[in-house]
Amino acid sequence: MRLLITGGAGFVGARLAHALLARGTLAGQRIAQLVLTDQAPPRAELLADARVQARTGPLLEQVAALRDEAFDGVFHLASAVSGECEADFDLGLRSNLDSTRALLDALRSRVERGAAATRLVFSSSVAVFGPDPAVPLPERVADDTLPTPQTSYGTHKLICEHLVADYTRKGYIDGRAARLMTVTVRPGRPNAAASSFFSGIIREPLAGEEALLPVSPEVSHPVSSPRRTVQGLIAVYEASREAFKGRTALNLPALNVTVQQMLDALEAVAGAKARARVRLQPDARIAGIVANWPKGATAARAAGLGLLPEENFEDIIRQYIDDCAATPGALKGLA
Amino acid sequence: MRLLITGGAGFVGARLAHALLARGTLAGQRIAQLVLTDQAPPRAELLADARVQARTGPLLEQVAALRDEAFDGVFHLASAVSGECEADFDLGLRSNLDSTRALLDALRSRVERGAAATRLVFSSSVAVFGPDPAVPLPERVADDTLPTPQTSYGTHKLICEHLVADYTRKGYIDGRAARLMTVTVRPGRPNAAASSFFSGIIREPLAGEEALLPVSPEVSHPVSSPRRTVQGLIAVYEASREAFKGRTALNLPALNVTVQQMLDALEAVAGAKARARVRLQPDARIAGIVANWPKGATAARAAGLGLLPEENFEDIIRQYIDDCAATPGALKGLA
Repeated sequence: MRLLITGGAGFVGARLAHALLARGTLAGQRIAQLVLTDQAPPRAELLADARVQARTGPLLEQVAALRDEAFDGVFHLASAVSGECEADFDLGLRSNLDSTRALLDALRSRVERGAAATRLVFSSSVAVFGPDPAVPLPERVADDTLPTPQTSYGTHKLICEHLVADYTRKGYIDGRAARLMTVTVRPGRPNAAASSFFSGIIREPLAGEEALLPVSPEVSHPVSSPRRTVQGLIAVYEASREAFKGRTALNLPALNVTVQQMLDALEAVAGAKARARVRLQPDARIAGIVANWPKGATAARAAGLGLLPEENFEDIIRQYIDDCAATPGALKGLA
Repeated sequence: MRLLITGGAGFVGARLAHALLARGTLAGQRIAQLVLTDQAPPRAELLADARVQARTGPLLEQVAALRDEAFDGVFHLASAVSGECEADFDLGLRSNLDSTRALLDALRSRVERGAAATRLVFSSSVAVFGPDPAVPLPERVADDTLPTPQTSYGTHKLICEHLVADYTRKGYIDGRAARLMTVTVRPGRPNAAASSFFSGIIREPLAGEEALLPVSPEVSHPVSSPRRTVQGLIAVYEASREAFKGRTALNLPALNVTVQQMLDALEAVAGAKARARVRLQPDARIAGIVANWPKGATAARAAGLGLLPEENFEDIIRQYIDDCAATPGALKGLA
């Protein structure tokens, strides 16, 4: 089978590619080719696999070529992120709405020429949820909580969920949308995202560096590890339509955790010295953004597919430590 | 003030134009000019008003010109309807999504050049609601019921609700979205819409003609008269942001009525002979479509704006009779 991952060089996309190549099959079929599209080329170890083909550049410019190519399945992860969409409204519309429309229309054009509908997993986000004055957020957002997004990113994700559902209803794709939780611990450097600290307060202390905590330790948030997130995307791909239930998006599993619990887990795994490298420095701007985010999530439909969240944050930290074993300096703060 | 009504030659648009011209003011300002865009020209009596300017052709082709024109307010009613969107997927995307995006971007470009945000009322629809296997419909859909549309038309309306909310959040427009109920009694001829019979079973008997009822008299549906619908659009325009509450769409008021109650009302207003002109002829295709529609709706936020549904269906029939007084033959079935 031939698979396409958009955003295949990204944090989740690259891990999904690795997982698929390691499995060798998907939904019972052998993976013969894996096409990765992204703005940047994928890591060298992915490119080294003979099954991998990389295409670099904006998705919107690549879609025309996709009209004449047969894929059995697509994981559509490419997206401008929250901060980018807030800073550049047009970029967000182009990267998230226009690109998805064009991709769906490319797949539709194949069905209109007689091909079978391509299976497509769309990576939506917990960012579809936010508090509206007319609709307060529940303590934990569920599969069927009313999404009232408070960012352009969340708005685009929600709109694409509904496009995927309608193209699926019409038989143009076999689409499924799964809402990713905040994926942590991310490797690399801090970025401008308001959620950056959720990874930073673990990653930096493990590397022996100081990390600033901009919000109260009482803040609670739904998170997931990269590994469980990738498992979730694969399970959603492999689910039968009946098991997926309906056409609306489902929540992927979340570990609902407070910052305090994250810090306690850091101390349990890496010691008090690592924990002491996190310094509370309240930032009203970031705290204000975070206050609009869900404090927790449930994922009943995902549980029906056998997907469960991590049981504790220690496991998420240990996963990061495993993944960083070969990264110079990443763990030099470990006792 | 200068106002724009897209879809200004349509059933609701023309009535809204009449109502605005008769009032002479909106939100305390004198209406100096009313621009009506539509695929077809508006009725002669609207064109005869010196304040009216008509522009005929697809909205998408007119939007470029709107970038350099100042409007104080916009009622965005133009839309391909349900049946059209199901028959021609591209037409639906173009008429409902691309046109709305282009309109919103034209208004945004004015703000980016220093103008104040234009107030915009978007006419959404009760069609955003539908039963998904994962999310059954409640007996009555409320403002905060999760929309899981089961038609392209409903999908487009929902997507545009969220675009309007996000452009409003960014300050590019002062947008509000109101979900219209099934507006009845429509004048004219039966059309291909599955909902056509909701008007036909009243309109045809009043004209002395037979009407076919394709569904069980037990079918229940949320309806509204043209007059209350227009009142609703104007009230939503005039509401303060605080009174509108949040940015999510609200339901306009609905009279939740069974077909049996509609027929009883017809007999009460127009006599047993009129009632006898309705003949039950079950149509499984239409019954199947209607089974996916909400059986009723509530409108708590609209009530907060002082908007209430009709109290009974007799009043809706009497409104139609008043409106048709000058239409040759429309009431020749009245005793």
